[in-house]
Order: sequence, then structure tokens, then C-alpha cells
Amino acid sequence: MRILVVNPNTTASMTATIEAAARRAAAGTTVIEAVTSSMGPASIEGYYDEALAVPGLLEEIARGEEADADAAIIACFDDTGLDAARAMAGIPVIGICEAALSLAAFIAQRFTVVTTTERSRVPVEGLVARYGMGLRARVRAADIPVLSLEDPASNAAAKLRAEIVRALEDDRAEAIVLGCAGMADLAAELQGEFGVPVVDGVGAAVKQAEALVTLGLTTGKRGAYAFPARKAYTGALAGFAPSKAVA
Amino acid sequence: MRILVVNPNTTASMTATIEAAARRAAAGTTVIEAVTSSMGPASIEGYYDEALAVPGLLEEIARGEEADADAAIIACFDDTGLDAARAMAGIPVIGICEAALSLAAFIAQRFTVVTTTERSRVPVEGLVARYGMGLRARVRAADIPVLSLEDPASNAAAKLRAEIVRALEDDRAEAIVLGCAGMADLAAELQGEFGVPVVDGVGAAVKQAEALVTLGLTTGKRGAYAFPARKAYTGALAGFAPSKAVA
Amino acid sequence: MRILVVNPNTTASMTATIEAAARRAAAGTTVIEAVTSSMGPASIEGYYDEALAVPGLLEEIARGEEADADAAIIACFDDTGLDAARAMAGIPVIGICEAALSLAAFIAQRFTVVTTTERSRVPVEGLVARYGMGLRARVRAADIPVLSLEDPASNAAAKLRAEIVRALEDDRAEAIVLGCAGMADLAAELQGEFGVPVVDGVGAAVKQAEALVTLGLTTGKRGAYAFPARKAYTGALAGFAPSKAVA
Amino acid sequence: MRILVVNPNTTASMTATIEAAARRAAAGTTVIEAVTSSMGPASIEGYYDEALAVPGLLEEIARGEEADADAAIIACFDDTGLDAARAMAGIPVIGICEAALSLAAFIAQRFTVVTTTERSRVPVEGLVARYGMGLRARVRAADIPVLSLEDPASNAAAKLRAEIVRALEDDRAEAIVLGCAGMADLAAELQGEFGVPVVDGVGAAVKQAEALVTLGLTTGKRGAYAFPARKAYTGALAGFAPSKAVA
Amino acid sequence: MRILVVNPNTTASMTATIEAAARRAAAGTTVIEAVTSSMGPASIEGYYDEALAVPGLLEEIARGEEADADAAIIACFDDTGLDAARAMAGIPVIGICEAALSLAAFIAQRFTVVTTTERSRVPVEGLVARYGMGLRARVRAADIPVLSLEDPASNAAAKLRAEIVRALEDDRAEAIVLGCAGMADLAAELQGEFGVPVVDGVGAAVKQAEALVTLGLTTGKRGAYAFPARKAYTGALAGFAPSKAVA
Amino acid sequence: MRILVVNPNTTASMTATIEAAARRAAAGTTVIEAVTSSMGPASIEGYYDEALAVPGLLEEIARGEEADADAAIIACFDDTGLDAARAMAGIPVIGICEAALSLAAFIAQRFTVVTTTERSRVPVEGLVARYGMGLRARVRAADIPVLSLEDPASNAAAKLRAEIVRALEDDRAEAIVLGCAGMADLAAELQGEFGVPVVDGVGAAVKQAEALVTLGLTTGKRGAYAFPARKAYTGALAGFAPSKAVA
Repeated sequence: MRILVVNPNTTASMTATIEAAARRAAAGTTVIEAVTSSMGPASIEGYYDEALAVPGLLEEIARGEEADADAAIIACFDDTGLDAARAMAGIPVIGICEAALSLAAFIAQRFTVVTTTERSRVPVEGLVARYGMGLRARVRAADIPVLSLEDPASNAAAKLRAEIVRALEDDRAEAIVLGCAGMADLAAELQGEFGVPVVDGVGAAVKQAEALVTLGLTTGKRGAYAFPARKAYTGALAGFAPSKAVA
Repeated sequence: MRILVVNPNTTASMTATIEAAARRAAAGTTVIEAVTSSMGPASIEGYYDEALAVPGLLEEIARGEEADADAAIIACFDDTGLDAARAMAGIPVIGICEAALSLAAFIAQRFTVVTTTERSRVPVEGLVARYGMGLRARVRAADIPVLSLEDPASNAAAKLRAEIVRALEDDRAEAIVLGCAGMADLAAELQGEFGVPVVDGVGAAVKQAEALVTLGLTTGKRGAYAFPARKAYTGALAGFAPSKAVA
Repeated sequence: MRILVVNPNTTASMTATIEAAARRAAAGTTVIEAVTSSMGPASIEGYYDEALAVPGLLEEIARGEEADADAAIIACFDDTGLDAARAMAGIPVIGICEAALSLAAFIAQRFTVVTTTERSRVPVEGLVARYGMGLRARVRAADIPVLSLEDPASNAAAKLRAEIVRALEDDRAEAIVLGCAGMADLAAELQGEFGVPVVDGVGAAVKQAEALVTLGLTTGKRGAYAFPARKAYTGALAGFAPSKAVA
Repeated sequence: MRILVVNPNTTASMTATIEAAARRAAAGTTVIEAVTSSMGPASIEGYYDEALAVPGLLEEIARGEEADADAAIIACFDDTGLDAARAMAGIPVIGICEAALSLAAFIAQRFTVVTTTERSRVPVEGLVARYGMGLRARVRAADIPVLSLEDPASNAAAKLRAEIVRALEDDRAEAIVLGCAGMADLAAELQGEFGVPVVDGVGAAVKQAEALVTLGLTTGKRGAYAFPARKAYTGALAGFAPSKAVA
Repeated sequence: MRILVVNPNTTASMTATIEAAARRAAAGTTVIEAVTSSMGPASIEGYYDEALAVPGLLEEIARGEEADADAAIIACFDDTGLDAARAMAGIPVIGICEAALSLAAFIAQRFTVVTTTERSRVPVEGLVARYGMGLRARVRAADIPVLSLEDPASNAAAKLRAEIVRALEDDRAEAIVLGCAGMADLAAELQGEFGVPVVDGVGAAVKQAEALVTLGLTTGKRGAYAFPARKAYTGALAGFAPSKAVA
Repeated sequence: MRILVVNPNTTASMTATIEAAARRAAAGTTVIEAVTSSMGPASIEGYYDEALAVPGLLEEIARGEEADADAAIIACFDDTGLDAARAMAGIPVIGICEAALSLAAFIAQRFTVVTTTERSRVPVEGLVARYGMGLRARVRAADIPVLSLEDPASNAAAKLRAEIVRALEDDRAEAIVLGCAGMADLAAELQGEFGVPVVDGVGAAVKQAEALVTLGLTTGKRGAYAFPARKAYTGALAGFAPSKAVA
């Protein structure tokens, strides 16, 4: 089984963090192929970056599907472009937010997502609501720019820990969800340190992708996720005319 | 007052329909500037087209704001790119779905949105839920490709009428919302014909934009809609590095 | 276009505040006619006052419609009597709470309503839920009797400011909605002072009324807002037998 | 124990139906005092009648409380004026809709309210949502004018039966709630006939009022139901200045 | 009328507290029969105890129904086994949580449940949501082991009072619901002390059971509460093959 | 990795069906241990059977955990006893309903659960709501007694197919979830036949259990799922005093 993991921002060092987390989670028989988007923002912080990360992301998923990937993962906690990718692709596509929330729901009644910046807090609250966890999960921002997670000299890890403490005390969280792909390498350490389950979305998504492939399940194609309708695309995005389009 | 109306698909004939509806709705002192996106899909039908329409749309709004537009309207019923545009721009941005639902809520307790295709039905249901109308509004698809609305020889208008009949009988709708910018020219005629209020989002959005500008209101910039953080953008989207970015 | 603005309490000085706000918001071609209810409570603070303000309010709207008003506004943030007025009248009727929430939703994901007294807080929370904003808006009471807003010697403005500070800090509000018609004159000043959008419902309602009239929309008459059924009215309210009643 | 039952419409024959149902439900030690409102509409069908029924209703409750009633019941399924009455009175006040839904929830997971006319259907749906039963209860209108229930020559009972059949088949209702005080005399007969529980709100409200009085419970007075603030009332409603008002 | 009150834990001293509260609430013509479960946990604190209390509870209700009880009450605030009991029995069955919330909703818009331990807080929040009170009621745990309520030397009462103070101040509760059957004897005293309504579920359930019996209502038997299907039961629970089973 | 799969009914032939499905789904390195409960009902149809299946189920999970299982699965679509099992055990516990809904949500926006009998329909709707899928998933009952699925001579499979057809046509389902462990062997065949994803909960739960174990995640133990408090258990259930109890 080959699982494509797309880092939808253009920062290769973050892809390395993501790839390592994905490999730790993967079954022995699963091949992880991690790629970095070649167009768009260097990090995804809020709605604007999210929207502009989508074309590069879709390009990588289309390329991966052609190269026989069995499933694709969008390794950004905003699950950016997820619906578009599902409509475009024949293979299943998983977002790391939805994957993390799904696993957290199996081990805790109440949990807290700790994400990076205020620009991302409300969008993640929107995902929590969309995925039906509005009564169970809270979202906190640790005031950490995404790329500071790549910088050992920053105080990002300290701020993250401080926010986890607040989640445990004020929210009475029974588990913590790490709200950024760039935090994937911290899950095990934080779990040991705080004595509560700490869920990383990258590993979670790998397992969900394996689950779907093993069970022979892929995106249903008779409604909102039908393959796109055939049509012209223009200008800088002319190359995006949907290749699997139907009449 | 100058209001920019962006048709986020690349079909100029649909822009003409939209522009006419916007002008009919505008106050005498309002200047309507309607533009067609120069990149992306020829029509927006479902999640994939939606996502790819966003860069072209943002480009037009950024250009319009530089040229001193006072507000911008996204003339696609999926309200595609709305959050990204609000974060990017200093001027207010209105989507035609949210504008139409807002007005419908002032005149009916229960109403039905009639949109084009099955690919759009569930996404519009998602907007209805997001805008807090889940208990009041239903969504129906008339099985009309978007561009068939531009073709007098198609049976699009007949299918639309048939679906309105079902909405009135089966949903007991007290008002109808037209779920596509390309239907904007039909609102008055259908209202006369069926004897119930028929709301077109293009006109509705023009009035909401005028309201915000007149009252001196624009997007709040201290949370999810803060201006984007400054950062590098790469590849075909390098030009999208946010011009109003903050540190 | 003639818009009737009814102050449903009997305090003429508050009508003056409301009228001024309505005129500032109105288009050049709109005539604002502000009236004070002639029966009921001097101010509306909670459910009891609300209920007793309704007959006087309905009387003014009926009279205004006969005198060819094109739309009516109920200038009390509890939107008291709104449903009854919509059923009674052929012209559109707008409440200032629903109008303010609608505009706030176009410019902020999260916002806070600051109203007057605890007696009004829960009723306004009920409206927030009814209008579908329960996940986006919070309600705070500044502990200000309504009529103290008319008294420059009171500390009402100071208390209002203190509550706005709490909303910005504790709720992370991206915009503020003023939760009483008597605050209408403070919106611009507070917006300048706090640097966030401050929405006044009176101005908002004027723009929504203009929108509906311009677009040829009025209340749908085939369901809950059908004209009342013809019947006898008795006693002190005998005059309220519905004049537009249907069999 | 003395329980006041107010028929908020002005039709004495309906009061007789209500009184009989209340007496059948009451404990041997409970005295039922049924009164007919002296002002307002002859029947309550929709929002307009509802609003105008309130002053007469409040007058009767205030009078009853002075005459030492221990609790009051509003015998209209729209629970009209309920919040105002609770704020005004020191004794508990019960609406027949809330009482009926409460009892139905103890005996069925899914149930259907069958009310009179389309004008009442959406308002009752609003109550169902307010009382937290939105996922459990459906509302149907049998197209019966309220006063036709008093007329044995009408086909009201036949239409009611037909709608119950639809509720049992199409909604899979496990119990039926009669959605009008004027149907109170039919509950036992319909229950026998259809073999499912049939709940009448008048009887239900009597038992809830007895429960509160026996347990020494009355309306909490520290929030939305605080006694009204002292203030002037003007015009035809001058007599309604709240007698139990607080500063 | 004979009402069976089952204490589903095996602690007879708590049954005595419950029985006394039930008798205080009961009408003069009602016979209260309080029994203690003979199998399962000594107290019910959280999901595990809840589940194991059910067989003993069902056994007592089946026995009570055979001995001609007219209704049954489950005197544990987790409403444990309620659905199973309703399906099994022909007589109505009431849980004390649902009964308490129902009464609280008649006298307060916002209220707080104060329960015993953290293990019970989230389960009770689940009940609050199930019964449709999620927007109105909050749940607090006073950190009191259930059986400490039986021990005058414990500081349980002091902790309960401290939590009520927080509910009144921080939640602005208008009423308090006691979240454990073992608190039933404290309701009147706490109500006098704090000056707000304090609702005990045992008394509340007695009145609801009386209401259903008086009105001739019992559980609807055509859906989820149909009598169980006839089948073999095995092992230690062989005796539980449903005696009223249907084919 | 060793995963315990408990069939909580006492019918060994159904365990065989479940075990086969679990083995098909499991990774090569996973050992599946399927057991049949030794006490309780022969099949689980509705609330009564559910409740009585719990002690036997808990007994098997406790035994499995002592024998070093890494995770446990409750193979009944009602997820009966799930919360109790999670509180009792140190290893993660998965229900097949929650597992199936989780996977379905990754591949469809709208889907339908087809379960066995009317007795199970409303309970499953309750689970759908609890797991946050209320707006996305519908539940249908095919009127199939659970054990008829084991009988090739029954018309169970035909009825199941007929209900799937209705789900696809009337609900516009994009995927089907099989709502009974006894249907596990039909998933692949039905998926091929209808051309839409068909999700079986047994396989789904195996993959979720593998995911949690691989990622080192287990139930959070600081809230509702804390280990039970130490206490006496009495009577036939004396053996259930919680072995991992804490003070």
C-alpha cells in the first residue's frame, strides 16, 4: 500500500517532520511518500493562506494518484482543500484534523485542540463543528507562528506546554489534540510528560488511510463528491481542467 | 460609492447577467463595477470548481480594492473564497448566498433554496447550516448545468419552475431563494408568476454592501479575519504574497 | 420610499435618538417617519414590558401602513411583536436585533451583543439562538436601566464601555453589537474609540428595510405570516380586530 | 390548593371544555378556577391573535394571584404570554404546550403534535425547539379552525383523526399530543381508538402546577423572570403598570 | 395509586432518605413503596456502576409491576436503565434526572445541576443534552462521594453549598437542581438558605408518576419502547428472559 | 498486537461471522480473538436486550485485558456497554457503530445506516446524534430479526437490499453503513452490487483498534472514563466489584 502525504505549504523542513511522523505510524507494509507543495504559502495560518495552498495541493494529489498512490493525506490541520480533493480524486483523501478528532473521540468524552495562532483558532472551531464535535472539543491557540515550530531556538514548545496546562485545568480535557502538522514530533513526548493521551493528526491520518484501503473503501461518487463536470479552465490555472471529469 | 461585483467564473456572458441585476438593485449614487475572473473554471459546480475559482477571485478583489472600491461582492452562490477574501481585504466582502439568506429570513419563517446541480446541493446545505438557517431553509437542486441558464434553448427555466412548485407544495416554502448567480434575471418574473417572494442573491448582496459602506462598517480585523501574516509565496502563486500582510 | 420607525416604548426623547440614527443611515431618497407608541411602558426591560408594548406598536404599524409607509421598523432590541406585526402587515417589518445581527455576521465570525439589564440578557440570548447565531454571538448586560441612557448625568456610558472591554478581552469579540435602541447615537464614537466595528440596530434596520423595498420583497403570506383570520375582538382591544383579515 | 386556568381567548364555551378537562385531571384536594379572558380575540390562530391575547391573559393571572391562586395555567397551546406572566407573577405559571411535551417525553422517544391550522404550525414548531424537543417531535396541522372544534356539525374531529393516522404511519409517532386546548375532551377517546398514548396539555398542566405547588417551587426571580422594574404605563394599558415591580 | 421507588444502589440507608422525600411529595392517596436493589454496586458513580446497577433495578421494577404498582421511579440521577425499563414494563417509568429537569424548566430559563463527583459530571451533561436542556442547564460536580452524603461527619454538605454559590455567581443560575438522589433531604433547607428554587428529583419524579397515572398515560409501545422480542437468555442472567415479550 | 472482539450476544454462529470479518480486516501482524458472551440475550434487539448484554460483555473484556489483549471491540451496532467498558478497562475499547460512522464520514457527506428492526432504529439514531453525525446520516430499519441474518432460508438479505435501494433513492445516500454485526459478511458483495461504498462496523473497528494501539493511545483516565471507584458489589453481580478500582 502506498500512501501519499502532502504538505500543502512549501516548507520542506516541515515535510520532513511530517514524513517521520507518518512513517512511525505506518504499518510495515505501507509505503509513505511525502511531498512538499511547489506553489503557495510557506506556512498556512488562517483563511488566506489556506485558500492559496489548494491548487498546489491538488496538483500533488492528482500526480500521486496517477503514480498509483492508494490514498492521500492532506497534512495541514485546517483540512484545507479536502472537499475539492475528494471530488477530484478516485482514491480516498484524509485530512489530519478530521483524523485526529476521530481518534480522540474513541478515547475521551471531552478534549481540547491546541493549535498555533489566533488566525487558525476560529477556522479550527469551524472544523470541530463540521465534524460533529462541537459539544465535546474546545480549541485553543498557543500564539505560535507555524514556522517557529521548526526553530529550536523559539519558545514555541514552552508556549504549547503552557496552553496544554490550561486545557487540562480549565477545560478539564481528558485528551489533547495537537492542532498543527508541525507538532507531529512532539506527541509522544507530551503524552509522557502530561500523562494524558496526546493525538497527532499525521499519524492518525495514516491509520485512517490504511483502514480505508484495507477495507476497499473509497469516496462515494454519487453526490457532492462526484467527479467534477468537464469544462474549460482558463489562465494560470488552465492546467487544472479536471482530468477525471464526467459529462 | 463604488461596489465591485466579481463573477468568479470565467464566463463573461454570465457577468453581464450579474451586472444587470446588480445595477437594478443599486442606489442611484452607487457605481457597480462588474468583472469576470481571468483564471479558473468556466462555471462553478461543486467543490473542485469552487476551490480553483478562488485565486482569480482574490486577484480581482485585491485589484478592485487598490482601485478604491468601497466593497466587494462574490457573485457565486457557493460563497466561494469568502473567508479568504475577508481576511485579505480591508473593504467589506459579501457573498450572494449569505446575502440572500439574510433577506429571506426577514420575510419568511421557512424557505427553500433552489440551486443548479446535485454537486452544489450539499455544499449549499453546508452554507445554510453555517449561516444558522438549518432549521428554516431547505435546499433543492433543479438538475440544471450552470451554463445552461445562459442558453435560451435549454429547458433550464422549465426545470427551475418545476422545482419551485415542489418547494411550495412539499416544503411549504413561504419564499424561494434562487441558488445561482446566473438566475438573477429571473427573480422578478418568478415572483410575479408564483405569488411568493423570490430572492436573488446578487441584488441582495448589493444592498448589504451599500448598508455596510453607508454605516461605516467593515470586516473586524482582530481574529480570524486579521490581515494575513507576511510570508513568502512560491511558484505559480508567487504573486499572491499578501500585500496588506502584517508581521 | 417612506420607512416608518416605531419606538415601542412611550418615551419621546428616546424616539428622538432613534430618529436621528435612522436619518443618518437612510439613503437620500428615503423618508424616515419616527413615531412613539402611545400606550404601554416607558421603557422595555424584560418580558413583561415587551408583551405590553405590543398593542401600541401594532397600532402604529397599522396606521403607518394605511398612510403608505413602504416598510416598518420596530426599534426595540428585543424585536418585540415582530412576528405579530409581520402577520398583520402587508409591508415588510424589520426588528433592530435581527438587522444588527445580520450585518455583524458579514464582518465578524465572533461578536458580542452588549445590552442593558439582566432582565434583557436571556431574552436577547433567545433571539440570538432564533436567528441562528448561537455559536457566533455572546450576550452581555452592562447593568444600565434603559432610560439612564437618556441621562447624561448617569454612568451608563462608562458601564457600557467597561462591558465592551470585557467582550473584547474575554470573548475575543471581533465586533460589538449595541443591544438597545437607546444606544444608537454611540455607535460611531465607540467604533472610533475601540477600533472594532460597532453595529447599531437602528441604522442596520433602515438599510434592510431599504433593501427589501428596493428589491420588491415583502413578507411571504402563505404560512405562519398569512394575514390573520377574520374574527371578533373584545373589550379594550376590540379595535384590534384584524383589518386585513382573510376568511 | 387553588389552580387558576385562564382561557386566553374570549370564547366561554371553550373555557367550559378546558375546565372540564382540568377538573378530570385535578387531585381531589385541588380547586380549579377557570376563567375566560375579557379582552382580545375570540380564538388564537397564529402570531397576531397570540400577541393581542396577552394583556387580557395577564390581567386574569394578576387577579387570580391577588385572590390567592397557588398557580396559574395558560390554556392555549401557543403558550402565549408565558414569559411575561412568569416575570409578573410570584406564583408558578404553566403553559399547556410545555406541559404536554414534558409528559410526552416520559412515555415516547418520538411523538407528533397535531395542531389546528397552518398559522399555528410554525409557531408550535418554534415552541418544540425552545423546549428542546426538536429532534423528537414533529408538528402537523389538521386544517381545523379553532372554533370549529366547538361545533359538532363541523368535520373537525374527522380531520383530526386523519392527521393522527398520518402521524402514526409517516412519522412513526409513538404518542400523539393534541395541539389545542379545545381538543382536551377528545384525548381519552382518541387514545382508546388508536391504541397509543394521547396527551392533552390542559390535564398535563394541571398536574405540573400541582407538582410545583406541592414541592414548594415557584419561578426563580433573579434573572429573566425577575419581577418587572417599576415604571409608568401609558394610554389604554396604563392599568398594567406592574404591581409587584421592584426598583 | 401505588408508586414503586427503586434505589438502584444497594445501600439501604440511602433508600430511607429517598423514601422520605418521596413520601413528602406524594399525594395523600398515593402509596409509596421504596425498595433497595439486591444486586450491584453500593453506590452509583459513573458509567461502570451505572451499567451494573441495571439488572438489579430491572428485577425490582418487574417484581413491582407484578405486584400491581401503577408506576415506577428510578431513584438515581444518572437515570440508569431508564430505556430498558420502559421497554420492559407496561407501567410508566420515570427517572429522577428527567423529572427534575422538567420541573426546573417551568421555573427558570437558566439553571445548574450540582452533582456529586467528576465521574458523574459528563454523564449528567449527556442527559442534559438528551433531554433538550443543553442551552439552558449547566452541570457542576461538588467532589462528594455519593455515600459521604449519608455521613453527617463528612464535609459533603459544605462542599455542596460552596458549589451552589459558584453556580449562582458564575452561571447566574436562576434555580438549582440537586444531582443525586442522596441529596433529596436537603432541598427545602437549601432553598430557604439561598432564596432560589432548589429542585430534588425524587419528589419531582413522584409528581410526574402521579401525573401519568392520573391521566391514564403509559409508555407508547409501537417503537423503541415496544415490549422486548421473545428470546433465550443465558447464564447468570437466564432469569431475565423478558416475561412480557412479544414475537 | 492482540485484539479482542466480543460478540455481546450469546449466539456462537454470529461470533463466527464477526470473527471472519475481523480477520479479513486485520493487519498480518494482528491476532484476532473472538469470543461469545456467556450470559445474556441470544440477540440484541432494542434497549432491554442491550442492557442485559452488558455484564457478560464486561466480563469478557476484563478477562481479555488480563490475558493481555491490546484493545477490545464490542461487536454490536448499538455500542452497548461502551462507556462502562471504557471506564473499566485500561486498554482502548471500540464500538462498531462509532467505528463505522467514523469511516463513512471520510468518504461521504451524506450516508444511511440500514439496521435490523424498528426496536433498534431509534437507539441507533441516538448514537448517530451522540457521535455528531445527526445532520449527515439517516437510519433505516429493514425489518429483519437479528438471528434471521444467520438463516439462509430467510428473506433477510432481500429485505436489506430493498432498504438500501430506498436509501439511495430517497435519502440520496452516498454510502451505506450496515447497522448490525451480523451483516458483516455482506459488505463486499453489496458494495459490488450497488456501486457505492458499503461500510461494515466490525472491520472498521478492527482498523480503529489497530490505529490506537500502534499510536500508543488509550482511554484518557482523568474524567468520565476514570477507573471506577472502589466499592462493594452485591448479590449475583458481586464478582463485578471493579478490579482496577481507585480510591
